[in-house]
Amino acid sequence: MLSVSAVHAAPHPDRLFPADPGARAVAQRLHRAVRNERIVSPHGHVDARLLADDEPFSDPAGLLITPDHYVTRLLHANRIPLDRLGVGRGELSEPQARAVWRSVCANWEVFRGTPVRYWFDVELAEIFGITERPSAHNADALYDRIADRLRQPDYRPRRLYERFGIDVLATTDDPCDDLSAHARLAADPAWTGRVVPTFRPDRYLEPASPGWDRSVDRLAAVSDVDTGDYDGYIEALEKRRGYFTAHGATATDHSHEDVNTHPLGAAEARRIYRAARAGSVTAAEAVAFRRHMLFEMARMSTEDGLVMMLHPAVRRNHHGPTAATFGPDTGHDLPLRVEFTDGLRPLLENFGTHPNLNLVLFTLDETTYSRDIAPLAGFYPTVFAGAPWWFLDAPDAIHRFHGAVTETAGYRKLAGFVDDTRAFCSIPARHDMARRLDAAALAHLVAEHRLGEDEAVVIAGELVREQPRRVFKL
Amino acid sequence: MLSVSAVHAAPHPDRLFPADPGARAVAQRLHRAVRNERIVSPHGHVDARLLADDEPFSDPAGLLITPDHYVTRLLHANRIPLDRLGVGRGELSEPQARAVWRSVCANWEVFRGTPVRYWFDVELAEIFGITERPSAHNADALYDRIADRLRQPDYRPRRLYERFGIDVLATTDDPCDDLSAHARLAADPAWTGRVVPTFRPDRYLEPASPGWDRSVDRLAAVSDVDTGDYDGYIEALEKRRGYFTAHGATATDHSHEDVNTHPLGAAEARRIYRAARAGSVTAAEAVAFRRHMLFEMARMSTEDGLVMMLHPAVRRNHHGPTAATFGPDTGHDLPLRVEFTDGLRPLLENFGTHPNLNLVLFTLDETTYSRDIAPLAGFYPTVFAGAPWWFLDAPDAIHRFHGAVTETAGYRKLAGFVDDTRAFCSIPARHDMARRLDAAALAHLVAEHRLGEDEAVVIAGELVREQPRRVFKL
Amino acid sequence: MLSVSAVHAAPHPDRLFPADPGARAVAQRLHRAVRNERIVSPHGHVDARLLADDEPFSDPAGLLITPDHYVTRLLHANRIPLDRLGVGRGELSEPQARAVWRSVCANWEVFRGTPVRYWFDVELAEIFGITERPSAHNADALYDRIADRLRQPDYRPRRLYERFGIDVLATTDDPCDDLSAHARLAADPAWTGRVVPTFRPDRYLEPASPGWDRSVDRLAAVSDVDTGDYDGYIEALEKRRGYFTAHGATATDHSHEDVNTHPLGAAEARRIYRAARAGSVTAAEAVAFRRHMLFEMARMSTEDGLVMMLHPAVRRNHHGPTAATFGPDTGHDLPLRVEFTDGLRPLLENFGTHPNLNLVLFTLDETTYSRDIAPLAGFYPTVFAGAPWWFLDAPDAIHRFHGAVTETAGYRKLAGFVDDTRAFCSIPARHDMARRLDAAALAHLVAEHRLGEDEAVVIAGELVREQPRRVFKL
Repeated sequence: MLSVSAVHAAPHPDRLFPADPGARAVAQRLHRAVRNERIVSPHGHVDARLLADDEPFSDPAGLLITPDHYVTRLLHANRIPLDRLGVGRGELSEPQARAVWRSVCANWEVFRGTPVRYWFDVELAEIFGITERPSAHNADALYDRIADRLRQPDYRPRRLYERFGIDVLATTDDPCDDLSAHARLAADPAWTGRVVPTFRPDRYLEPASPGWDRSVDRLAAVSDVDTGDYDGYIEALEKRRGYFTAHGATATDHSHEDVNTHPLGAAEARRIYRAARAGSVTAAEAVAFRRHMLFEMARMSTEDGLVMMLHPAVRRNHHGPTAATFGPDTGHDLPLRVEFTDGLRPLLENFGTHPNLNLVLFTLDETTYSRDIAPLAGFYPTVFAGAPWWFLDAPDAIHRFHGAVTETAGYRKLAGFVDDTRAFCSIPARHDMARRLDAAALAHLVAEHRLGEDEAVVIAGELVREQPRRVFKL
Repeated sequence: MLSVSAVHAAPHPDRLFPADPGARAVAQRLHRAVRNERIVSPHGHVDARLLADDEPFSDPAGLLITPDHYVTRLLHANRIPLDRLGVGRGELSEPQARAVWRSVCANWEVFRGTPVRYWFDVELAEIFGITERPSAHNADALYDRIADRLRQPDYRPRRLYERFGIDVLATTDDPCDDLSAHARLAADPAWTGRVVPTFRPDRYLEPASPGWDRSVDRLAAVSDVDTGDYDGYIEALEKRRGYFTAHGATATDHSHEDVNTHPLGAAEARRIYRAARAGSVTAAEAVAFRRHMLFEMARMSTEDGLVMMLHPAVRRNHHGPTAATFGPDTGHDLPLRVEFTDGLRPLLENFGTHPNLNLVLFTLDETTYSRDIAPLAGFYPTVFAGAPWWFLDAPDAIHRFHGAVTETAGYRKLAGFVDDTRAFCSIPARHDMARRLDAAALAHLVAEHRLGEDEAVVIAGELVREQPRRVFKL
Repeated sequence: MLSVSAVHAAPHPDRLFPADPGARAVAQRLHRAVRNERIVSPHGHVDARLLADDEPFSDPAGLLITPDHYVTRLLHANRIPLDRLGVGRGELSEPQARAVWRSVCANWEVFRGTPVRYWFDVELAEIFGITERPSAHNADALYDRIADRLRQPDYRPRRLYERFGIDVLATTDDPCDDLSAHARLAADPAWTGRVVPTFRPDRYLEPASPGWDRSVDRLAAVSDVDTGDYDGYIEALEKRRGYFTAHGATATDHSHEDVNTHPLGAAEARRIYRAARAGSVTAAEAVAFRRHMLFEMARMSTEDGLVMMLHPAVRRNHHGPTAATFGPDTGHDLPLRVEFTDGLRPLLENFGTHPNLNLVLFTLDETTYSRDIAPLAGFYPTVFAGAPWWFLDAPDAIHRFHGAVTETAGYRKLAGFVDDTRAFCSIPARHDMARRLDAAALAHLVAEHRLGEDEAVVIAGELVREQPRRVFKL
């Protein structure tokens, strides 16, 4: 008898489809209609330099483990310390990388039932041709096989980008970033893909956050606009948005503790800005200013057309000691409760029907799906429901999203899937998972005679083709 | 090959039943046992004059589109402006009505996966004999067929009331309404139906709301009780409740921002009332007074036996510009977070076991199903779980309600379905949807051997026959 | 034709398994692999004296009805008064007990669809060999059959403990309890089971709660430490924890209105303690002190290794008149909204990766499953997701828990099932229900090719064997 760890782990062709044979057959047909569609990735955290430089990936651990807090947090949760996983240690030596890889394989069971496991299985099989289940026993052999592949030209970032079928990939960037990697790609005749930046100004909008003053100084330097007063600050932000637009950006991205958008009068905004620059802003003023600035971002969007993504209410770096030792993005950014309806009201009363604005709402608080997001998206032409993501980009969670949002908002108000990933190789697995789950959800409706199969095919196609392009203006 | 829009759209006889063949067979049997039961509609927004006057319906758009914010909000959300849908424009000319109808048919795809689509399909098929899917191509032909029917005597309101199998229909009425339409119906020997008013005093209980002072003046006028002081105000309200009861009312209906029910001492209540009448009430006092008055409403219910419906936490007219142009009830009343357990405690400590009181709790915040409503209904004999409604009266949402409430409260503590509709023709489709979903939910329990099928049949029957009549005292 | 009440009610061997035949077959196999595993019960409310004394149970009502607020609250909710159910009346005479039993059987339908009904059916069938459905007609006959069994030696508590296959049973105890029943059992050579106490200090940590001062006096008396000042109070608590540990305790149990754990400086803690002892503590100080003490409990756990169970946010004795007449635990302790992420942050920043600490989070607010608990358990090695319980220990609720927690935290971060019951005879039925639902949830994953069946068997076993023993240190 085979032991658990040695069995074949090739992804099943019917994975994620409903168990009921009738519904499964519908899901198979729906998936078949979209599985080869090219990937639109309107939000993620891949570094544009990866594709601009097109250097070979260093090693299996550096590619698949250390940068992916989805993987490391679950191991940490099971008492494998982050330093044994190479987190925050920069480039690893070959023995270090191999040791990290071994730790992951030897604890493979902690991923059971999670999407991390699902993506990993699919990546191993479809990118690296590996269909054994990782374990302490085969860790070294798997490491060698992957490392061997990574030395081949077909495994360089650009070749993988092509092989993955990516049509457009959005990165997430600091407003002061010079976007030189994006520019290099755009200028490179050998490059046929499309990588667009996203304007992510959070730190510039929070006067109470550490380093704000320096950030605003830097904003002045890169925009060549004096940010000594509020009007200059606004102009500098507008100028950087223009710079991003000129480099292909179609969207901005915002994550603050809430989505309140109460605007301030111009005098009050100027006064608080002055106080903030003078280092004498109060906590309440800083919050009021940030809420005002979110309103201002919407105002700018009505002028320059950049789509706004909102994904509020995350407690960043929850475990101080880990942040101090290993840095940010190490798996303990944790969700908070949130509300959208009253918070967004000032923004929506002013811009909620504006023809230039698209607003995509993401959440980690599922209570907002049916109570806030779907009702808002079901009335305001500017509001779209962002895909379930981060802690919620797993099969059951995605089905809950479908069930909670589509009955009120309809399928046309979904923004389509975003992978939101730092793990380049997981992009096709994540998009295919989303397509399979869309197919499963739609098959459920078809099987219960709530939707015609002809219509379900149309919806499945729109969700991966037209809708992300239309909503994110790609 | 047929294009999407031309295919047959007749509702499937097994619609909304589980896909699993075994469970589906149970659901079929359960539904068969209740599908012809007469309709009890304890809460809705049909105008009693519709049946008192019994005039022919004007046209398809005026009947099916313009008054139904479920329909118009989804089109608005997809960038079809409300003025193109005839909202807030009063009676439409024939060309206007036809243009509205065309806009709906041409955008039929925005309703895919929503209950609006489901109800519409069933209405078209079962009331008007139309089984093609609406589209830009057949819009005019469908308009003509429906308009033709509406000119026939069988399509007058009273004939439809009979054909729909309605046993009793509750309307929602202002406390100062003279209920003359109800009285005309009651006095009409040709009328064999039953239409009862519901006492909806929200605006009279909110001293800070616009027009409160005038409302209270009007209350004095219609009740012939001086509302110059608090005691007169209370007496006037009691007298109007008596008037409603005399006209057949069995219930009151309340929707405020929260359900807090903290009572005030008599002196404090009098003081705040005086201040409110003098125009000097503070926001906090107004809130305290309204909470006190909700408590008072329960006190009155223990005396006159009127059932209390509570459906709190809605932000009315979220988009000011739309409200200003098109009026209220135009699709942007949006849900807020709510809690019942602490809020209702004063009311329940005083009246929670009173033999005369029935309290039906509705919510748009699903988090309260298992946390607040089911535990309250699972202890207090006066508390019942109201049906999922408004944004939550769709198949997946109704299944979530069943799953979250019945395990804790049992089926006997459900108040039964309410359609809550302004769309007269959607009443049978909505009730049949509820019966199908009850059957599906119960079939699921039977198929998993959690309930005997003999018991499931009893429950399905009680939910449409005994329970709404018992809970709403109809 | 048989009437509803007379039909056979023997629990079906496939109860709670999925309806889909393929998934059901997987669930059958998974359940078969664990159904005979011995029961680990790390949290409950059975009295240790029951087993120490090993007296025969008095009668069917005293055994199955009066102490179980799950049963009595649902009858009360359906207008059967608590005094007709023998609640709060101490030992019942035979006619009284029989009358109580009749009330329950005559209202059997109120339990349809609830877990109470499920457990009762299984208990009647598997412990008492009764497979008829209770009703007014057979109430006396059933009473006689059960009463007859209770007089037999095989139905004494210890024999049932053995027959139930219980490996270890944790009780819940006051810190001042002398644990004499636990000591008697430990000293009894005829006793081969294991009953361990749990340290439940709530009332000692809430300076504003009634009787706190007397409780702290009593703490001094039993610990022989002067609790006149804060340092003595801390020492006395530590000493009692040691006493519990010496009597086999492995855990503490905490239920306050929130889980905030903000620590105070030593001087401030001493000052508030002095004020509390002097009777001059403010409400805000009392809350601050309790939050500090929850932090202190964690600090002590890192030293003595006791596992912490947290189950916050319950409004105790919601209906004052019932509490006054019938006492506490009479079915109206009701859930409140709660949050863990910010509340636990001080505790977790200090002790969240400590090797000695295990923290098990329970909730009655399902919104915290995917938003708070799973993300916390998915990062912190000390945090585990406690089983869904109380209002949430029913099939649909348990499936929601699985769906909301395991994708983010993985199966290894579940603490396993707790029965949390006062109803001794329901223990095997509750654990078997949990095992069936685990099997059903895992079968669902296997059927959708999200998990290998070989892995599902391992998980099902770990959830009942290794995980509760490891997490609760049993």
